[in-house]
Amino acid sequence: MIRFTVEKTCGNARAGLIETPHGTVHTPIFMPVGTKGSVKGVLPDQLRALGAEIILGNTYHLMLRPGHELIRETFGTLHRMMGWDGPILTDSGGFQVFSLGPLRKMTEEGVEFRSHLDGSKEFLSPERSIEIQEALGADIMMAFDECPALPCTDDEMRASMERTTRWEARCLAARKSDAALFGIVQGGVSETLRREHLAAIAALPFDGYALGGLSVGEEKDDMYRIIQSIAPLMPADKPRYLMGVGTPRDLVTAILSGVDMFDCVMPTRNARNGQLFTRDGSFNIKRKEFERDTRPVDERCSCAACRGGFTRAYLNHLYRSGEILAAVLNTIHNLQFYLDLVKETRRLILDGRADDAWSLVAPYDR
Amino acid sequence: MIRFTVEKTCGNARAGLIETPHGTVHTPIFMPVGTKGSVKGVLPDQLRALGAEIILGNTYHLMLRPGHELIRETFGTLHRMMGWDGPILTDSGGFQVFSLGPLRKMTEEGVEFRSHLDGSKEFLSPERSIEIQEALGADIMMAFDECPALPCTDDEMRASMERTTRWEARCLAARKSDAALFGIVQGGVSETLRREHLAAIAALPFDGYALGGLSVGEEKDDMYRIIQSIAPLMPADKPRYLMGVGTPRDLVTAILSGVDMFDCVMPTRNARNGQLFTRDGSFNIKRKEFERDTRPVDERCSCAACRGGFTRAYLNHLYRSGEILAAVLNTIHNLQFYLDLVKETRRLILDGRADDAWSLVAPYDR
Repeated sequence: MIRFTVEKTCGNARAGLIETPHGTVHTPIFMPVGTKGSVKGVLPDQLRALGAEIILGNTYHLMLRPGHELIRETFGTLHRMMGWDGPILTDSGGFQVFSLGPLRKMTEEGVEFRSHLDGSKEFLSPERSIEIQEALGADIMMAFDECPALPCTDDEMRASMERTTRWEARCLAARKSDAALFGIVQGGVSETLRREHLAAIAALPFDGYALGGLSVGEEKDDMYRIIQSIAPLMPADKPRYLMGVGTPRDLVTAILSGVDMFDCVMPTRNARNGQLFTRDGSFNIKRKEFERDTRPVDERCSCAACRGGFTRAYLNHLYRSGEILAAVLNTIHNLQFYLDLVKETRRLILDGRADDAWSLVAPYDR
Repeated sequence: MIRFTVEKTCGNARAGLIETPHGTVHTPIFMPVGTKGSVKGVLPDQLRALGAEIILGNTYHLMLRPGHELIRETFGTLHRMMGWDGPILTDSGGFQVFSLGPLRKMTEEGVEFRSHLDGSKEFLSPERSIEIQEALGADIMMAFDECPALPCTDDEMRASMERTTRWEARCLAARKSDAALFGIVQGGVSETLRREHLAAIAALPFDGYALGGLSVGEEKDDMYRIIQSIAPLMPADKPRYLMGVGTPRDLVTAILSGVDMFDCVMPTRNARNGQLFTRDGSFNIKRKEFERDTRPVDERCSCAACRGGFTRAYLNHLYRSGEILAAVLNTIHNLQFYLDLVKETRRLILDGRADDAWSLVAPYDR
C-alpha cells in the first residue's frame, strides 16, 4: 500500500509525499516512461542521479514480452528485472489495446486483441490487467478503463464511462495483493461528463485518482479547461495523476490545478529525435547552428551531459552521426529538465509561491 | 611525445609503460575503438570505470564528419570534443580509404576518393593524414600506408611496400607537432617480405612500430605465423602494435610474441549483435536458453552489467526488444572482458608466467 500526505497547498497546487514499499516520492513528480522494462538509453544508476523517484512500466508491452509470468517467476518483480529499486507505477494496458484499432474486439467482459509482435490472440480485462500488474509487482497499479475513440456523442461517451466504472469496480474486486490501485476518470472534453464520471469513480475506494483520455488529439484549450475545472474536484486526500501529459507548460498548468503526478514519453522520445528542453526553450540539436556551439545544452542544468563537458557541438555531431550516445545524452538531459521542473515547482509550492512556476516555462507556449 | 619503458620480459612477451601527454598506458593494452568520436554506447566515465587507458579514433570518419578543422577550431582536440581526457591513438585513414574500392584513385602523391557520406571529392596523402591527425590532437599518430588488395604477387606486394616506405618517410617529414608517430610494417603473409619491410621501416625514426595488413581475410595460420615470426624482430625499445586484431586467442598469441598494443571492433561491434565474451567462452545473448537465466553474463566479471545485477535473462529481453540498453550493457561487458584479458596477461608477464595466459583463452579456439 501507499500513504499520501499533503505537506502544503498553495492555491490549488499541492506539495506532498507518497510513501511506497520502494521508497518515498515527493510530489508533484514526473515519472520517466520505461515501456519495455527500460527507460530507453538510461541505466538505473543514471536515473537515480537524475533524481527520478518513480518510473512507469507498460503492462501491454511487458505482458507480451518477456511476459508477466516470466517476470514474476524469473525475477520476482519488474523492479528486480531492470535493476531499479525505486517505486514503479504500471498502466493497465487499456490505452495501448484501444490504440490497436481493428486488431481488437471489445465486449463487456474485456478486450480480445492480437499481439503486434506475432499476431497471437491475447485478452485483457479488468481482472486480467490486475493479475498482470500484480505479477509485475507494481507499487501503484492503474484500473483498466475504456478509452473511447474521439470524437463521439455524449451518449456514446456516457455509455463508455459507465462501462469504465463497472470495469474499474471489477479491478478493485480483483486485487489480491496490497499494491495501490488508482481509478481513472474519463469523460472527454465535456466538463459535465467529467464531473459525472468523477463522482462515480471517487465513490470507489481507490488509493489515488487519475485523469485519463487527455492529450489524445483534442484542442489544447479543451484539455486545459478540463484539467483546471476537474483536478481541483478530485479527492484531496489522494494523489492525483494526469496520464500521458505533457509539455512543460502542460505540467505547470496541471500542477497549479492540483495535479500531483505525470508521465509522458515527450522528454525521452523527443530526445531520440534531437529535441532538447532548456530553461530558454527547446531546440533541435541537429540544426547546423550548433555545429560549433561549445556551450552545454543548458548552462543551468546539472545533468551528466551538461556538467560532463558535452557541448552542443558534440551532441550535434553525435546526432548527425547516428551514435548511440546521442540518444543516451539527449535523454539524460531532457529527463533532468522535466525532473528539475517538477522539483522547482514543488519548492515554490512549499514556499507559498506556486504561481512563480509560470516563469519556469515562460519560453514555452501551449 | 611518448616514453616507452619495458618493465619486464617473459619469453617474447613484455610488460611496459607508455607515458603520453594524457597519461600512462600499461601494456599490453587493448584500445577500444571510438570511430566517429565516441566508443559506441559508452560514456567516457564508463570507459574509465572499465579501466580503459587509451582509445582509438578514425581519421577517415572524423575528417569527413565533423571535420578535423572543426574539431581543432571548436574543441582544440578530439579529447575535449568527446570528453575523454586519456590518450588517443588515431589511425591514418589509409585502411578505410583503400576499402572504398572503386570510389578511390591512387597516385604516388596520395589517394583521391569520394566521401561515403555525400560523394564529395576528398584527398588523403601522407602529409594530409599527418595534418589531420595533428588537428585531432592525437597522442599517437599512425603513418599513412598503402593496404594492397589481396591476394597479390610478390612483385605487386614489393611495389606496394616500397611505396608505403616512401609514404611513411613523408609522414615523418610532415610532422610539425611533437605527437608520437608509429610506422607500419606491411608485406602480407610472406615472412620474407615482412622481414624486408620491417628492415626498411625500422630504419626510420618512428616512436613505435605496427603490424598492418593482418586480419584482412588471410588464413588464421598465416596470420599467426607472421605475428610469431615478425613481432619478436620489431624494435624492442619501442611499442609494438598489431592493428585491427582480434579474438581473445589472437591477443594472447600476439602478446606472447611480443606485441604491446591492440585495437579491434570485435568486442564493441559484436556486443551490438548480441555476442558476449566470458571466461567460459562466448555466446549470443539472444538465444532462447537465456530467457530465464538469472546469472550475470560472467560471474567473475566486474563490469557494471555483471556487478549491477543485470541478468542474462534481462539482457536477453533487452536485446530481443531492440532496447538501447542492450547495446550499452553488452558493450560495457565485452570491453571489460578485453581489458581484463590484457590486464591479467600483463600481471602474468610481471609474474614471469606469461604462458599461463593461454588458460585465460582456453575456451576460445582460433
